[in-house]
Amino acid sequence: MEGLMMDYPLTTNTILEYGNSVYHHKKIISHLPDGTRHEYRFGDMYKRCKRLANALVHKLGITNGNMVGTFAWNHGPHVELYYAISGIGAVCQTINIRLSSHQIEYIINNSEDKVIFVDATLVPLLEKIAPLLETVEYYILLNAPKDFTTTLPNTLHYEDLLAEQSEDFEWPKLNENDACGMCYTSGTTGLPKGVLYSHRSTFLHASTIISPNAGNFSNSDTVLLIVPQFHVMAWGFPYLCLLSGSNMVLPSSHLQPDSIIKILQEEKVTKANGVPTIWLGVYHAMKMNPPKDKLALEEYLVGGSALPKSLIEGFEKDFGIKGVQAWGMTETSPLGTVSRLQPKHAHLSASEKMDIRAKQGLAFPGVELRIVMEDGTLAPTDGKSMGELHIKGAWTIQAYFKTNNSESFTEDGWFKTGDVCTLDEDGYMEIKDRTKDLIKSGGEWISSVALESALMAHPKIKEAAVIAIPDAKWVEKPLALIVLVNQNDEISDGELIEFLSRDFVNYQIPKNYVYVHEVPKTSVGKFDKKEIRRLFAEGVL
Amino acid sequence: MEGLMMDYPLTTNTILEYGNSVYHHKKIISHLPDGTRHEYRFGDMYKRCKRLANALVHKLGITNGNMVGTFAWNHGPHVELYYAISGIGAVCQTINIRLSSHQIEYIINNSEDKVIFVDATLVPLLEKIAPLLETVEYYILLNAPKDFTTTLPNTLHYEDLLAEQSEDFEWPKLNENDACGMCYTSGTTGLPKGVLYSHRSTFLHASTIISPNAGNFSNSDTVLLIVPQFHVMAWGFPYLCLLSGSNMVLPSSHLQPDSIIKILQEEKVTKANGVPTIWLGVYHAMKMNPPKDKLALEEYLVGGSALPKSLIEGFEKDFGIKGVQAWGMTETSPLGTVSRLQPKHAHLSASEKMDIRAKQGLAFPGVELRIVMEDGTLAPTDGKSMGELHIKGAWTIQAYFKTNNSESFTEDGWFKTGDVCTLDEDGYMEIKDRTKDLIKSGGEWISSVALESALMAHPKIKEAAVIAIPDAKWVEKPLALIVLVNQNDEISDGELIEFLSRDFVNYQIPKNYVYVHEVPKTSVGKFDKKEIRRLFAEGVL
Repeated sequence: MEGLMMDYPLTTNTILEYGNSVYHHKKIISHLPDGTRHEYRFGDMYKRCKRLANALVHKLGITNGNMVGTFAWNHGPHVELYYAISGIGAVCQTINIRLSSHQIEYIINNSEDKVIFVDATLVPLLEKIAPLLETVEYYILLNAPKDFTTTLPNTLHYEDLLAEQSEDFEWPKLNENDACGMCYTSGTTGLPKGVLYSHRSTFLHASTIISPNAGNFSNSDTVLLIVPQFHVMAWGFPYLCLLSGSNMVLPSSHLQPDSIIKILQEEKVTKANGVPTIWLGVYHAMKMNPPKDKLALEEYLVGGSALPKSLIEGFEKDFGIKGVQAWGMTETSPLGTVSRLQPKHAHLSASEKMDIRAKQGLAFPGVELRIVMEDGTLAPTDGKSMGELHIKGAWTIQAYFKTNNSESFTEDGWFKTGDVCTLDEDGYMEIKDRTKDLIKSGGEWISSVALESALMAHPKIKEAAVIAIPDAKWVEKPLALIVLVNQNDEISDGELIEFLSRDFVNYQIPKNYVYVHEVPKTSVGKFDKKEIRRLFAEGVL
Repeated sequence: MEGLMMDYPLTTNTILEYGNSVYHHKKIISHLPDGTRHEYRFGDMYKRCKRLANALVHKLGITNGNMVGTFAWNHGPHVELYYAISGIGAVCQTINIRLSSHQIEYIINNSEDKVIFVDATLVPLLEKIAPLLETVEYYILLNAPKDFTTTLPNTLHYEDLLAEQSEDFEWPKLNENDACGMCYTSGTTGLPKGVLYSHRSTFLHASTIISPNAGNFSNSDTVLLIVPQFHVMAWGFPYLCLLSGSNMVLPSSHLQPDSIIKILQEEKVTKANGVPTIWLGVYHAMKMNPPKDKLALEEYLVGGSALPKSLIEGFEKDFGIKGVQAWGMTETSPLGTVSRLQPKHAHLSASEKMDIRAKQGLAFPGVELRIVMEDGTLAPTDGKSMGELHIKGAWTIQAYFKTNNSESFTEDGWFKTGDVCTLDEDGYMEIKDRTKDLIKSGGEWISSVALESALMAHPKIKEAAVIAIPDAKWVEKPLALIVLVNQNDEISDGELIEFLSRDFVNYQIPKNYVYVHEVPKTSVGKFDKKEIRRLFAEGVL
């Protein structure tokens, strides 16, 4: 028997209308690429979304289901694009500006973008490949001076486009299962693959992340979106800020540690998101040059890679700021878990508490996890048995865009993450490694993530990346890349072996160390293990 | 174009499975009708739900879409019934034990309950009408001693039923739009009307109420469910506690102020819900006999009627406990709004802040409000213009069960609440009155709610109810029923008129007062204006 409740689709339009009706006075603050600061209200943004919707439909000929690309930093207009494009029933297809020209070209042609909205400072990256783009009819310039010149064809200025349109626009009635956004995986192992988010998945993800056990966002918060809008829709933050009435602060290209610290101070930011690399940089910059006044920042949500315990501890001890470990993937919208302590942990020692907080944490309502071992059986939830993490849920991918990747899905409907994990009795998930990054030495598994985290706890070490290198006797053995905090410091292999021997047994400890100025990173700031392997495992050594 | 995300139905089974997998160690504590205390874990409850599901299907012959009635207090087994009945695809139909025999008979026959689960202490209420119940095949006795005797036919003991079943049960795949529960309106103006909740509406309501701007529930909370499970599914609290990992405390019939205070103390309750009458009683009992130690109770959510400002202030000043005003109806699952301050209110005076907190507050995401004036136009959002409140949303009724009540719905898809309200510029809604309780005196509207709230702020007054009585000159004029805190106190009409003249103009102030020992109340604890009018307006005076 059907219930007798209203049919009320969960769409991004619902989010925008809610933000405007209840929180029209809340702020969106952009630190634009040219260094200027722009501030307006949700209510202003709402009106500009309506102008943009008119422009998309009447000027640019966008219709339901069309793909519209964005190639831009985090700022107000990019938020307007999220809402207006999906609001008319089209798909907001964010393009990662840090990919190679070849990958960018592939993404635009693969998704068949009809229009691309591009930041003036990023235009040179597109000019190179524009002749190869098969479907793009218009390029719309964001944050461009009036006299801006470019070789891109069919360009229009964003502000001109909005100025000539009306603020009256009635959103079409959409199906909540319609696509609203698309983001590509970072493609470290082959061509990027498109993940097509629905209105429903976007709404449910955002409204769940607001809850106290998750991100704990309220109308008392001012949130800095460090995660780029071209990375999994900035983790859904442009949506959850409207639902929770949190002020939004957008840093565009100002992502250097000193710029972030300045923005945190000036805007009295209370919460923020970002990958560990960002927080590592911010921490070391704050150590070097401690801020005079305590920041308003209460906590930062971190994901993308495991957050080293040493960083969580340092931030908290030195600056009273709490790091909260989360986990997710492009394929999971992205957030799937978060690690926070519960009252039952109150009696634990500081170090036991830290062990829990450094895990990837508990699944959110709407997310299910399981660990499948090599023999295909479910791993016991003992916090020790490792296997591949499978995920199922209301904002998990069902299939890739135009790609038959059936090997990523199980027959009983789970997505295979490729992460090697454990689940403990209390439901806390911990990533031990990526399937392909695990080191198998003498028949035993060694976790590169655990070694990296331990090495980064060394006071002289800023970054550490561990990969497998071939070994005649053990098949594989670990090799560690080391970046020192102070490049003039001296450290010996023996000292590191000694240091690791507190937590690891002999066969797990790397005997080979390479001291470098920087660890190669992917477009989303993770250690690029593929590149590290290419440089150090296949030849150099 | 459809998004490519998993089809993951939002059902009560998802909630139960989540509660078991992530929060199996969290507690459900019942203070049972016989005075004993029972404690078990979400994980234990989960297993009993599976046994119950087997019993429903294999022993009692319940199938998809069947109605199963509950006639019970708040306790663990009643929570098990919520999950197991809806889990197999049947409908958990909670019956309000405080209605008249005639209304109860009507509800059971109207909903066609096949089985009724009844608390032993409530059996006498059903025995009287059992011969008139047309569809009931079994009565299952809850919390009944082994030697319990009754004239009810076909009885079974709940614990026997569970004991003989297996813990293995696989939930069927349900459609999220299927019905999961049904509750009837209290029927103060005619026969009760059934509201049929869906799995989806139940899930979305619960997961939204968790958010910091709403109820702010986390896995650090211990929540006392004072609102009966037979009133709008206890405001969805049995669901949200599993989603948020909050311990659940269930008081069954122990709803006297002293019992509630004892439970609050013993169980270290941090949050609770209830109607104003309950909190009024608890406040006066605490004043009379102040607890030695500060309660763990941080805040209580109150709804059903407006919470007098004097009560909010008293609780906060005397005991450091925060009252949070919410609003909802059986037809809205029930929660639609909640009133909390925002950073923008920080500069206001204490009294201005209290004015905001005493409003019904901001709509939740998933809820839309509008005010339609007598002439059919939308009221401006000025906090002054009054009209009927209309509501739309993901957990709002679309139609009543088996009842054509088209006059409750607008052609453009809104539910007409029958409340006379204002909306201010910031989105705060305030109820001025029920449409039928407004007093129209000499062509001007007088709000009975405003007068009641003002009168209850008088230190000698415990309860005040205001109705319209006929007047030869003014057509209608207000009459106030007064219950004194101390029945031996003396108070004069003149003193009250003087007291009200601070906030009201002369024509609004009642000149007629009746001093009573108790204000007649409805089955859900609201002032029964219909009964008051019958007693005092039509004859007595």
